[in-house]
Amino acid sequence: MATFDIPTEQWAQVVEKSGGPAVYKKIPVQKPGPDEVLINVKYSGVCHTDLHAMMGDWPLETKMPLVGGHEGAGVVVAKGELVKDVELGDHAGIKWLNGSCLACSFCMQADEPLCPHALLSGYTVDGSFQQYAIAKAAHIAHLPKDLDLEAVAPVLCAGITVYKGLKESGARPGQWVAIVGAGGGLGNMAIQYAKAMGLNAVAIDGGAEKGAACKELGAAAYVDFLSTSDLVKEVKAATPEGLGPHAVLLLAVSEKPFQQATEYVRSRGTVVCIGLPAKAYLKAPVFDTVVRMITIKGSYVGNRQDTQEAIDFYARGMIKAPFKTVGLSQLQDIYTMMHENRVVGRYVVDTSK
Amino acid sequence: MATFDIPTEQWAQVVEKSGGPAVYKKIPVQKPGPDEVLINVKYSGVCHTDLHAMMGDWPLETKMPLVGGHEGAGVVVAKGELVKDVELGDHAGIKWLNGSCLACSFCMQADEPLCPHALLSGYTVDGSFQQYAIAKAAHIAHLPKDLDLEAVAPVLCAGITVYKGLKESGARPGQWVAIVGAGGGLGNMAIQYAKAMGLNAVAIDGGAEKGAACKELGAAAYVDFLSTSDLVKEVKAATPEGLGPHAVLLLAVSEKPFQQATEYVRSRGTVVCIGLPAKAYLKAPVFDTVVRMITIKGSYVGNRQDTQEAIDFYARGMIKAPFKTVGLSQLQDIYTMMHENRVVGRYVVDTSK
Amino acid sequence: MATFDIPTEQWAQVVEKSGGPAVYKKIPVQKPGPDEVLINVKYSGVCHTDLHAMMGDWPLETKMPLVGGHEGAGVVVAKGELVKDVELGDHAGIKWLNGSCLACSFCMQADEPLCPHALLSGYTVDGSFQQYAIAKAAHIAHLPKDLDLEAVAPVLCAGITVYKGLKESGARPGQWVAIVGAGGGLGNMAIQYAKAMGLNAVAIDGGAEKGAACKELGAAAYVDFLSTSDLVKEVKAATPEGLGPHAVLLLAVSEKPFQQATEYVRSRGTVVCIGLPAKAYLKAPVFDTVVRMITIKGSYVGNRQDTQEAIDFYARGMIKAPFKTVGLSQLQDIYTMMHENRVVGRYVVDTSK
Amino acid sequence: MATFDIPTEQWAQVVEKSGGPAVYKKIPVQKPGPDEVLINVKYSGVCHTDLHAMMGDWPLETKMPLVGGHEGAGVVVAKGELVKDVELGDHAGIKWLNGSCLACSFCMQADEPLCPHALLSGYTVDGSFQQYAIAKAAHIAHLPKDLDLEAVAPVLCAGITVYKGLKESGARPGQWVAIVGAGGGLGNMAIQYAKAMGLNAVAIDGGAEKGAACKELGAAAYVDFLSTSDLVKEVKAATPEGLGPHAVLLLAVSEKPFQQATEYVRSRGTVVCIGLPAKAYLKAPVFDTVVRMITIKGSYVGNRQDTQEAIDFYARGMIKAPFKTVGLSQLQDIYTMMHENRVVGRYVVDTSK
Repeated sequence: MATFDIPTEQWAQVVEKSGGPAVYKKIPVQKPGPDEVLINVKYSGVCHTDLHAMMGDWPLETKMPLVGGHEGAGVVVAKGELVKDVELGDHAGIKWLNGSCLACSFCMQADEPLCPHALLSGYTVDGSFQQYAIAKAAHIAHLPKDLDLEAVAPVLCAGITVYKGLKESGARPGQWVAIVGAGGGLGNMAIQYAKAMGLNAVAIDGGAEKGAACKELGAAAYVDFLSTSDLVKEVKAATPEGLGPHAVLLLAVSEKPFQQATEYVRSRGTVVCIGLPAKAYLKAPVFDTVVRMITIKGSYVGNRQDTQEAIDFYARGMIKAPFKTVGLSQLQDIYTMMHENRVVGRYVVDTSK
Repeated sequence: MATFDIPTEQWAQVVEKSGGPAVYKKIPVQKPGPDEVLINVKYSGVCHTDLHAMMGDWPLETKMPLVGGHEGAGVVVAKGELVKDVELGDHAGIKWLNGSCLACSFCMQADEPLCPHALLSGYTVDGSFQQYAIAKAAHIAHLPKDLDLEAVAPVLCAGITVYKGLKESGARPGQWVAIVGAGGGLGNMAIQYAKAMGLNAVAIDGGAEKGAACKELGAAAYVDFLSTSDLVKEVKAATPEGLGPHAVLLLAVSEKPFQQATEYVRSRGTVVCIGLPAKAYLKAPVFDTVVRMITIKGSYVGNRQDTQEAIDFYARGMIKAPFKTVGLSQLQDIYTMMHENRVVGRYVVDTSK
Repeated sequence: MATFDIPTEQWAQVVEKSGGPAVYKKIPVQKPGPDEVLINVKYSGVCHTDLHAMMGDWPLETKMPLVGGHEGAGVVVAKGELVKDVELGDHAGIKWLNGSCLACSFCMQADEPLCPHALLSGYTVDGSFQQYAIAKAAHIAHLPKDLDLEAVAPVLCAGITVYKGLKESGARPGQWVAIVGAGGGLGNMAIQYAKAMGLNAVAIDGGAEKGAACKELGAAAYVDFLSTSDLVKEVKAATPEGLGPHAVLLLAVSEKPFQQATEYVRSRGTVVCIGLPAKAYLKAPVFDTVVRMITIKGSYVGNRQDTQEAIDFYARGMIKAPFKTVGLSQLQDIYTMMHENRVVGRYVVDTSK
Repeated sequence: MATFDIPTEQWAQVVEKSGGPAVYKKIPVQKPGPDEVLINVKYSGVCHTDLHAMMGDWPLETKMPLVGGHEGAGVVVAKGELVKDVELGDHAGIKWLNGSCLACSFCMQADEPLCPHALLSGYTVDGSFQQYAIAKAAHIAHLPKDLDLEAVAPVLCAGITVYKGLKESGARPGQWVAIVGAGGGLGNMAIQYAKAMGLNAVAIDGGAEKGAACKELGAAAYVDFLSTSDLVKEVKAATPEGLGPHAVLLLAVSEKPFQQATEYVRSRGTVVCIGLPAKAYLKAPVFDTVVRMITIKGSYVGNRQDTQEAIDFYARGMIKAPFKTVGLSQLQDIYTMMHENRVVGRYVVDTSK
């Protein structure tokens, strides 16, 4: 078995008070409890959620001081006495769900994300913006050793989330799914997962550039909400018999699509909400929902099985997620760019610099 | 095989212009087409939908002149050349869905109620407020001969609809379902179907009298929205671990419950909309719907299989539906009472008087 | 609307007595009943079942004299008065299931292949080895006009059957399915459908040549039963964690694989029987089946919805089915070759010569 | 929080070598590990499996020396540092599945019984035939405090197993299920669970006395295999339209029913194997299985969620399981009676004497 020299101190980005900033400093390395592992994080994706965690502007309280990050990829360097099936040297991912009780009525049914005792990486427990992070062993993402740890990082949140949403949609291979916000980071992945799952994607977003990108990633059709005169009509026209898509994936960050999707989804179809625009509401006429037998549902992050399946699609080369890498020390710069809405694509931080 | 003397004329209630009234008069008896049967209607339930059809106050246009009625129970007295598996003398029910194309993509998947060519009894084709009514043979409800035709009539619409809703809810035997509007005609049936399906019902309605009736029909708990100080809390408290019911059946005729049910449904639970309050909207916060993975869906009338299943529960003695019977000639009186909101329980008309 | 000159006589291959031969002769053209269409068959695939029908060596009795054929592709040239949604000039396929009652408890649940009144093309009713064939309108396969009628013919039986089996397997995109008999006609299609549905196929058959073909069609792995020393071990080794495939599709024509598949299928996995080796039995140890929670099930032909879905995959260019075409007049030659086991690949007959 | 005086020594029945006997003696009380609890077992059911464990006549090896027992009901008196959601003083059950890794691909999908690291009570770890037993906290059955610990013991194995089988059958409320071996201990419970789940049971067993008992427990029909001249015909005749039951539950201890059930199950129906007759094989003709689309599957013990659901039905008063109680010191007498096939009904041992 591999053994590792584990330092007592490490570099980390620490948010010391709500509102930030993140401070790059040395902190102690923790020891894993009996059911935990210690992961030497090599790379971590940066997500808007991390900014929310620092700013404290969500209804859910964070731990403070806080090490953020929930898309960490690295190597297991220590483990507790109860940990089976994980070996030192294994490659592993830290994801949003750092741990759950594994014993409540939700965990018993493999709905760990709904566990009332769930631990959230970079939110209620310290996350992946440090060189050595703790995770519950039963919850780590298992990464094949031939995967590039840098490239896989964004899959650990964005990839799993859209894959889960596609599963929850109930759409079967050969059916059609509209992806709202297809031009963004999640949307781009959703198109690729949809294709890999045998689905036909109708990409919806704004602008010709995004349209070209969506088509290249495999979308069967693109509807440009900026230029169309009738979005509902155009989405329906893009699908067989003009009946509309069997499912809709809402990755949008504004409220309107959440109130419009039921207009173009096929009768008996399913609208899946994933995006979380602030203070947004679903709204749909009761009459139409009933007589067309439409389903609207929410999909949160994936469970552990979804995680492994989402990674497996990636490992088989079916998903590409473009990213730029900077040093962990530069994290605050990315936050500033996010704040100013200047980020295009996904950023990954390298914990070694 | 039985043979029947079929008159050329019959008594019927005919709406001659939108807005009514229904006129009791003699009209010709029709002949069935190749795939149709002629049913000698003995009894027919009267439903609010019949009043809407007469008044023409729904967005969907009716046939005119119109013979209303879609809860007819009677005897097959003639059939077309293509009709198999139906014999003269069979007992049969006419339901809301009089016919469908059986060939479109919805019919092919047993979703006949969504067929774009659906024929609606007492709405787009003449219904059961006459002594001899036409129905597509493939769509009649098959009634065992030992069933009382008078008593089964209301099952043909109300019973099938709530049974379908319970199936659509996905709730499994042993789980909990809240029934909103449990004290009404549909609600009373829903409690009984729920119990027969192994479900635990939390009845929700207003007033102690309704509460007592719901409990007697088998509800595990009753929440009185008139007297409770916190309906959400009380519904949750009535269920295991206080987590809320696994499903909610919305039979209410006002909008508020459609916007409140997601607050008390269990995480991962399903809210099923069935009632059709005029101009009502579903509304729910996106955040909560996503992180609690809630499903909201519409359930319309049952398909043919649901119909037979709903009747089978009734035939096994598990469903009681109280009713009062008057002559078909008095239909307009019932409409007047409905209009004035004076109807309690279900009315059935006897076509022989 | 298109109109067509329909002759009173036509060329057909008629089996006049059980045991054959098929006689190429002129017979009258039939007129469609109220719920039927008349199809001008252009091409028809030839299947082993056709030979069985002529020889009368199956337990199920045939019509006699009999026009065989159940993979016909052509043009609708006449229709009955009740037929909606089919226009003269539409392209249509005749498949094994020529018609069903659409009203029994199986048809009501979209299991038309189990209808006790099912009509079987080229078996209990005349089939597609004639220029003008009758089919129940609700049961024809709808073919987009841009599809090549010659090439699509074999999809109408082989394609639908394997697609149905893959659906019945319950395997989800990303999972693994073993295809036994992958090198044959059905097997080749199964590999392609599996891939189009996002599944990973482990092809099983004998010989290096078949292996190369399977890989080229998209199989993730090939196991050669002729050269392996331990088939069970090798199949398991080809799948993630060595746990075996999530599903197995049995297209084999010998009995052994039907008794071996439960040994390598994953715990909780499903073995789907499709092939019909004469007098073969399933056999599996009870103990293993129970403690590993294995499912074994039979899958017959597709229903109407499966049919349209299977054609849709083909229409999107994801399925290739190689074939050779000869004149209808030469049908008996193909039967002779089949009898002598000299047929490689699928034959199609052209009804114009 | 309650505290408990835990002795250092306790009474137990210890099998010291394969083949037995069980020796009643004092042994040390263990301490729970970080994820374990210590349960003061009050009562334990005795199952044939316990005899197999002592005799070592199953293909699966046991721990030795061994304390048997896997239907223990008692009180939690100590717990490890990681245990949440279990309090000292809670009532808890020890079941066949003492623990599992909660992290493998089966556990992740809530199929803990298939976990390769599963710990089996009274087989691979010490079980409930002692006064203080260890169990993994995440796997104990949670028992409401108002349940009688003596009476609930047999539910912890027999009850859960038949309930799981009924769930696996896929039969929906209102459908029909044949229960083979309905007159035995498992069969009696299966009839009651079926009824509580809204199913109609056709009980199959031998003799009029068993028939009367089955009917009294709620079976809709009884078929006596000792007196019937045609079992297949009679079972079918007992179900709607004579089509056979939608599902069959095989609790039999001989091989024949495992090879006969596919003859009377409804087309599209499911045969669930639960019983484990020694060296028995499933066997069914491929042709019939395919064209009737029959499913045969194995169902092992329940997972944790099934456990809580099965207990909940019991707690709501819907299941009665008769038993006789003797002192733990008399266990060997029960084994002797079992060996001589003289046990009628279920025995429970009281660990206090």
